[in-house]
Parts: sequence; structure tokens; C-alpha cells
Amino acid sequence: MQQALALARNALFLSNPNPRVGCVIMSVDGRTELGAGFTQQAGGPHAEVMALRDAAARGSDVRGATAYVTLEPCSHHGRTGPCCDALIAAGIGKVVGAITDPNPRVAGQGFERLRAAGVKVEIDAAAGVLSRELNIGFFSRMSRGLPWVRLKAGMSLDGATALHDGQSQWITSEAARVDGHRWRAQACAILTGIGTVLGDDPLLNVRGVDTPRQPKLVIVDSELRTPPTAKLFDVPRDVLIYCAELDARRQSALEARGARIFHLPASNGQVDLQAVIRDLGQREINELHVEAGGTLNGALMQAQLIDECLLYLAPSILGNAQTAFSGMELTQLKDAPQLEYQQAALVGPDLRIQAIVAGHDRF
Amino acid sequence: MQQALALARNALFLSNPNPRVGCVIMSVDGRTELGAGFTQQAGGPHAEVMALRDAAARGSDVRGATAYVTLEPCSHHGRTGPCCDALIAAGIGKVVGAITDPNPRVAGQGFERLRAAGVKVEIDAAAGVLSRELNIGFFSRMSRGLPWVRLKAGMSLDGATALHDGQSQWITSEAARVDGHRWRAQACAILTGIGTVLGDDPLLNVRGVDTPRQPKLVIVDSELRTPPTAKLFDVPRDVLIYCAELDARRQSALEARGARIFHLPASNGQVDLQAVIRDLGQREINELHVEAGGTLNGALMQAQLIDECLLYLAPSILGNAQTAFSGMELTQLKDAPQLEYQQAALVGPDLRIQAIVAGHDRF
Repeated sequence: MQQALALARNALFLSNPNPRVGCVIMSVDGRTELGAGFTQQAGGPHAEVMALRDAAARGSDVRGATAYVTLEPCSHHGRTGPCCDALIAAGIGKVVGAITDPNPRVAGQGFERLRAAGVKVEIDAAAGVLSRELNIGFFSRMSRGLPWVRLKAGMSLDGATALHDGQSQWITSEAARVDGHRWRAQACAILTGIGTVLGDDPLLNVRGVDTPRQPKLVIVDSELRTPPTAKLFDVPRDVLIYCAELDARRQSALEARGARIFHLPASNGQVDLQAVIRDLGQREINELHVEAGGTLNGALMQAQLIDECLLYLAPSILGNAQTAFSGMELTQLKDAPQLEYQQAALVGPDLRIQAIVAGHDRF
Repeated sequence: MQQALALARNALFLSNPNPRVGCVIMSVDGRTELGAGFTQQAGGPHAEVMALRDAAARGSDVRGATAYVTLEPCSHHGRTGPCCDALIAAGIGKVVGAITDPNPRVAGQGFERLRAAGVKVEIDAAAGVLSRELNIGFFSRMSRGLPWVRLKAGMSLDGATALHDGQSQWITSEAARVDGHRWRAQACAILTGIGTVLGDDPLLNVRGVDTPRQPKLVIVDSELRTPPTAKLFDVPRDVLIYCAELDARRQSALEARGARIFHLPASNGQVDLQAVIRDLGQREINELHVEAGGTLNGALMQAQLIDECLLYLAPSILGNAQTAFSGMELTQLKDAPQLEYQQAALVGPDLRIQAIVAGHDRF
């Protein structure tokens, strides 16, 4: 199962919006690996089919063998045929699954169908914890209908993200920026605000990481001020712009650059952030990677739409400067969003901190 | 030597301004501990004498035995007689020392005198690194004439130390506050600013930690506005107030509460912070523990007077609020003070980060 989990991690940048799944088929005596595989890009074969194909290519006889899978084999016709049927047809004798598929079209029916066909089924719950963690966005979307929203920020040790004149290149190290691109690469979409687009004219794509796909780019842009000349349009990928005011001329100029425009106003004249996150869930966004300025960060945090913070703390002191959540202002300490630390690690000279908003992973 | 280092840590709250030293005397065959001890309070016996007394109390014969000491035995008459002479007189055959005493009155003469008396001397340089770390304030004062200045702050994950109206109780946890008191307890003095005194009326003493002594309290108070009714005077300990403007009436009122007033103005009409730190070094302050507001923190950091940051990061987001070094404002990112991470550890729900200002520990 450890091997299957390691294989699943190979699908990190690849399988979105499908879950990252690994499969290893072992001989009846448990001594010989007969075949192994992981989920390919959406529409491509799942882990089980890859492992069966691998076994066939090796000339292995998988009849009666045990398949270790990091997620329940699917039982429905989605983009591909049901993996259960493939396992049964191949004569697999036993399936050890890490966790039940949260997809309501599977949700236990995969294990059920295997059992009905005479295949033994076991659950490895410890591996299930790791498989769920690896697929937190998929589990979030299937269980809550919402993406897992991870906010990334780089800051000094005293919380500054830029000097007052906007200087922010570079507070964190090259190593931290490369690491940040790996987190971008595993997301289905990157979200930013119009302030960042106008201020930095960023590409907001994945660079310096070997990835077969670019995440979509989502821009929160109430007044549709994104310039059609912005560099972000130079990257081939989907661009989704959420606005609160429609403007036919601007809209067609942006659509001419390939953007899709969505009108989701809230009562305050700004974009309805909650509606944006819900909409992205419906558009099969598993992990949403937020890289925005203090205004949008603060608004998202105050609206309880952030699930996880990924912060790179440079070992420097910047003093009086801009901060990461300046768009939020509290009148009572007790109203502060509370998180729980998950991990702290050195990335080059910087400290990377992962923390989950308390309660947000209970789904 | 590990045992001697563990003993030295027992002197953490005790031996200031003397170094924390441990000593273990082992039999010639290295199998039996004959005696052990650590430095007592200033004026009391040093580790070597404690270990010899312990051996005598146990009835051990220490002739020819090996003494493991975490710092070079002293060769001069200070508050006590030279430990070298005591070791020689007892007939110790070999001394394994962790590191040379940086005190210019010792500085190798201790090892020299032992050798001259026929005692074998060895150096355990690996243990020396740990012994120096444990006595960073003593090494700093002896080598640079300056205390080791450690700034402590509690803040949210996004760097906020208080809401704009001053609410700060409590951002960090009870566990972090108890831990903070342990760091206070090992300091020779705590330094704060008049803003904190007037705003919070704090005690700034050691509470909830078993300590035989209270650190001195140092207040940076340019206009001598410390109220003689402040609660800080209720704690029995030395209070030193550094001012830039003298006022005979206020001075005598504060002196009546036991404070000592020092006049150290800089050209800008504020207290000369560099002169304060130098003066504290001359007053035998090894570790200076700074707990102040953003104004004084920022001024100390900008003047390059901070050596180490001890930050407790609560897992909460406070948004637009007060920050820990607001008294400093940069115009260029490249001018930011750079630090190096030493340690990150969970203290209750909070993350404690230790970082040293780059280059400041090279003395």
C-alpha cells in the first residue's frame, strides 16, 4: 500500500480534476509485484487499469492476485469505464482499498460490486488518512461541493508582504518561489484579484516545474478592469473573470483574449465571493490556490472561505509595511479566525508554515 | 560531558551573571561517578568546587580522577578563589574542558595553570559549541562588552501584536506565556519602553516559574514619565530607568520607589539606545530580554541592537492591526535586517520561532 501511495503522488500534477490514485497488484503469496500504475490525465485510464495493463505487458498472471488501491475502484461509467469491472474481468481475487470514494456515484458501490462478484475486499484505514490528505481537494468538492481553498503568501518574519510603495521582489527566497510553483502545479485553478493584476501584471502560471498542464486562472475583478493587454493572457489556459458590473465593450475585448466572464454581484456592489467559490466547485475545481493581495485575502478570510494557509516566512524584519490580510479588520480579538498548524519546514532560508482553518477539514 | 552539560542547565535561572557550568568527576577507569555539581548563585561556589565537595561528602577518592567541566576552570580570584587551585589541590589527574573561558582574566590561563601543575588537559570541542550556546550572554559580554539582546514577541500568524485599539490579551496561548516566563527567568534583565509601561501597567517579572531570583527591569523612558505608582515597583528587584531629559521632581519620586535613573540622551532628544546597551554590558547583564511595543522594537532593530528574535506565532489571523516592529520603516527591501532560523517548535497551539540576526553570533 505504501508503494501504491507513492505511485498516487506521481499523479499530483496530472490527474486533476480526477483524484490521485495508485494501484499495485501483488501475487497471491504477496511476494511478487505483478503490475503497478497511477491515474493518468482526465479521460485517460485510472490507476487500476494502468496496473492491469502493466501486468499484461509484463506477462503476469493476475488471476487470484491482490490489488492494493489508494481509493475505492469506481463503479460508474464516467469519462472511462468502471474499474471494478476491469478488476473482476481480470480475475483479481482480493482488493485492499485505502478509503471509500466520496463521489456520490461510487460511495461504497465499488466495494459492493467487487464483493458481489466474489472478490474479497479489505480496507486499510491508515492508508486512507494519507490518501484523503493527498486528495483533499477532491474529497472537499465531492463532500461539500466546494474546492479546498489554499491561500499562499510570502512574508517577512514580522508579517510584511511588501513595503508601502509596493516593493516585494523579493522578500522570500528563490527556493521558496520554486516550492510555491509546485503548489500552483497541483491546483486545478489559481485565484487572484484585480489589484494584483493591475499592480504586478503577473503571469500566474507554473514555471520551473515539470508539469503536463497549467491550472486555470481565476480573477476577481468587480469592475472588469483587467487589461486585455495583460501578460496573463500570454499563457495558454482557461481564464475565468468574475465581475460585479457588466460592460459589453470590455467583456468582448476580454473574450477576444480567450477569457470567460461571469457576473456574480453581491449586495455590496462587489463580487459575491461565496458564489465564486461555489461556482468553482461546480466547475470541477478541487484545489483552489489563492495568490492575491491583502484586500482580497482579508475579504476571503473574513468570509470564512479560506481552508488552509501556506505561508513562507523569510527570516527578515521589514517593520511598518503592507500585510497579508489587510482587507480584514477586527473589533474583537475573539472574532479572529483560528487555525491549526499542520507542518513547518525550512525551504532554503525560509520557513514554510501550513495551517488549516479550524474545523474546515471536517467533511 | 553530556551529564556535565545537563548539570550546567540547572544553573540557568541561578548563576547570573556567572556562566552556567557543570562538572562531573569520574574515576580513573571512567566507570564510576565520584562527584558532580553546577555553578551556584553569584558569590557562591563554582561547579568544580561543588563537584569536589560532593565527592568529599560521598567519601570518594578523587586523586588521579578525571573532571569533566563545561567551561575552562577559572584561574583568577573573583568573587571566589580559583577553581584550578582547588582541582590541583584535590589531586585531579585530568581535566576535560568543553571550551576556553572568554573572560579575559582567564582566557586559557586556567588550562595553562592546570598543565603546569601536571594535570592532563583535553578539550571537547563539540561540547564547547553547546556550552557556548547555553552561555551566549556571558560569551557576548566577555567578547563584545555587550549583552546578548533577545527580543520576545507574541503575534498572530499574520504578524499582528494587538488590534488597533490595543487589545492583545490574549493572542498567544497560556502555554506560550508560561514558556515566555522561562526565557525571562534566564535573563539578567528585562527591557521595556515607556509606551508599554503607560499602556499596560505590567509587572514584567517572572511568574509561574520556580526561580531563585528576579531579573532586573530596564525602562527606556526619554521624558521620565514612568508613574511612581506603576505596578512594576511592587516587585522586589532592581529597576533601571534610562532617560533623555532630567526632571528633579520626577527623579526623586522614582528614586523613592527604588529606581535608579540614568541620563543618556542622543542627539535626536531620545534615549541613546546604543549607549544603553553598552551601559548594561558594563553592569554585568549577560542576556537582555526585550519585551516592548512596536516603536521601541523597531528602533532597536533598526539600530542593529537586537541579536535574536523569540517569536510566538499564534495560529490566528488578525488582519489590519498593530505589528511588532512598527517603529521601523524601510525605503529599500535590501536594507531589511536579515536573520537565520535556529529552531521552530510547537508550544501548546502556538509556534515558537528562534532566529538570530545574521552575523551577530560571530564573536
